[in-house]
Amino acid sequence: MSSTKKKGKQTVFFSSPPSIIGTAAVAGAKEGEGPLGAYFDTIVKDSMWGEESWEKAESKFMEQAVRTALSKSKITPSDVDYICAGDLLNQCSGTNYGIRSLEIPFLGMYGACSTMALSLSVAAMCVDGGYADVCAAACSSHFCSAEKQFRFPLEYGGQRPPSAQWTATGSGCAILSAAGEGPKIDCITTGKIIDKGITDANNMGAAMAPAAADTLLAHFQDTGRTPSDYDLIVTGDLGKIGKSIVVDMLKEEGFDLSENYNDCGLLLFDCDTQDVHSGGSGCACAALVFCGYLYRLMQEKQLNRILLAATGALMSTTAVQQGESIPGISHAVSITLK
Amino acid sequence: MSSTKKKGKQTVFFSSPPSIIGTAAVAGAKEGEGPLGAYFDTIVKDSMWGEESWEKAESKFMEQAVRTALSKSKITPSDVDYICAGDLLNQCSGTNYGIRSLEIPFLGMYGACSTMALSLSVAAMCVDGGYADVCAAACSSHFCSAEKQFRFPLEYGGQRPPSAQWTATGSGCAILSAAGEGPKIDCITTGKIIDKGITDANNMGAAMAPAAADTLLAHFQDTGRTPSDYDLIVTGDLGKIGKSIVVDMLKEEGFDLSENYNDCGLLLFDCDTQDVHSGGSGCACAALVFCGYLYRLMQEKQLNRILLAATGALMSTTAVQQGESIPGISHAVSITLK
Repeated sequence: MSSTKKKGKQTVFFSSPPSIIGTAAVAGAKEGEGPLGAYFDTIVKDSMWGEESWEKAESKFMEQAVRTALSKSKITPSDVDYICAGDLLNQCSGTNYGIRSLEIPFLGMYGACSTMALSLSVAAMCVDGGYADVCAAACSSHFCSAEKQFRFPLEYGGQRPPSAQWTATGSGCAILSAAGEGPKIDCITTGKIIDKGITDANNMGAAMAPAAADTLLAHFQDTGRTPSDYDLIVTGDLGKIGKSIVVDMLKEEGFDLSENYNDCGLLLFDCDTQDVHSGGSGCACAALVFCGYLYRLMQEKQLNRILLAATGALMSTTAVQQGESIPGISHAVSITLK
Repeated sequence: MSSTKKKGKQTVFFSSPPSIIGTAAVAGAKEGEGPLGAYFDTIVKDSMWGEESWEKAESKFMEQAVRTALSKSKITPSDVDYICAGDLLNQCSGTNYGIRSLEIPFLGMYGACSTMALSLSVAAMCVDGGYADVCAAACSSHFCSAEKQFRFPLEYGGQRPPSAQWTATGSGCAILSAAGEGPKIDCITTGKIIDKGITDANNMGAAMAPAAADTLLAHFQDTGRTPSDYDLIVTGDLGKIGKSIVVDMLKEEGFDLSENYNDCGLLLFDCDTQDVHSGGSGCACAALVFCGYLYRLMQEKQLNRILLAATGALMSTTAVQQGESIPGISHAVSITLK
């Protein structure tokens, strides 16, 4: 135990920062048609991907993302000490069936749409702590399985309000290693549950924004860094409404996000032409943007240091139907070439 | 990174084993009437616990277990660096709402009924790795919310086959610390997903038993230990059927579990008089038995070294309705007074 590793209440710095030696992004058709289409390893046009259900298709996205990331990292499943992964489906079944055939020791995660950052955080601790040489971090979501589970049957054709977001279809996986080349995770800031009383399941950005602001603020306070220390700060899937709330909340605390802050939900889709209303969402939103786009920009040294603050609405239909508000959470991962 | 910490493919030994400085077990009425009733901190007779729904009651069990464990450990929520927790409800809502008011950085876990061991495992890595001075590990389940979600409405009064198990109502929480007195977690063995093709949601013991056998075997192979190195080996919630499968499977591999092996599902209830058929199940099963009963026996030095191998059926109703089999997983935690 060396408690000197811990800096501030919510942030830990790694003494041996793990390298992200490879990633993969497997995207759906709409995601492939968006601005980042060129950055994905695979674009799957058929939402069923030849399976009998959207849920089985989601598991296939996950399996394909993990296998592709392993292959690109030139390792096999048996080289991986742990896989940290999760998704939005009840009992995380996208993950359970997706990684079933891999036979990798499995740490099951649930962080809703913050799962990419949660999985990266736990995987980074496993590697830096010496418990693993190699860890995989992965998550998935699927527009059709998520709409069906959380909102309405797709066939119903329910109208979506302007505040609604579009759950991304796809899966991303990152491979963390104690050795090897690649951008490194130098510190993480783990979020608390923040609930400001939003009850509208069609306004997730507003439900999650206070959690993102809380974690970003904790990160800056714990580390002594400011927004300008990063080339890019990205939240996970706040969309237009949530993003503007975060900018306002941080401004009140004295931090200016106007220069270098964006949201994965606004990067993944073109809101003006793709009919996604407030932007993208879902575990796959931050996963596709990080594992596909941002990782490539870091490899190409267009970005040297980023802060990925994925965001999750810890929503359950049962709880919302019982009148509960929607708790949010956000976990931040600092990734650097230095 | 010191890869010497890692012994064998699935097991890690801790260089600074975390102490379990306190636990709490908050149980439902039926659990309180069982053989271990005297070991629980609180027994709640009303399945709604004064709330408007079983789900809200489950969250109250979780909150009460965490707050009681903190109080018994003479610390407050602000002393806790991370809480690792999860439950069986869709999107882990028992946990999300249960710990919402605590404002502790939250690592969300999903391991179905293996969650107590999963949470203990991740919490132990956080403490031993120097990322935390204090971590909480918790989980919950509730018979009524689980039956309603996974099987039939309670009002339907569906008949339960002899292989069925009874989801425990309650929550357990353990507090891990880098300093302080208490039994220590000296090593953990993290399980893989094992699926032998069981599709019967009323025979979870059979679905999980191969996973338990796989993890126990990995533990013995990785550590060089044998069953006789433990005063007690307990699986989480295999019940009568699953337990006998594990004994048979380990016997085939040359390990004799006949002397000192039991299952939390058979310890929590009296199967002969409490009408629980094959035994107890649910996240709370292993949690109540460990946090209530086994922890006390260790404090009283009646047990010096135990292996808690909690077991989870990664079942989703959607997946089962789509004809999928039920994957199992088991995580083992070695706890010692030495």
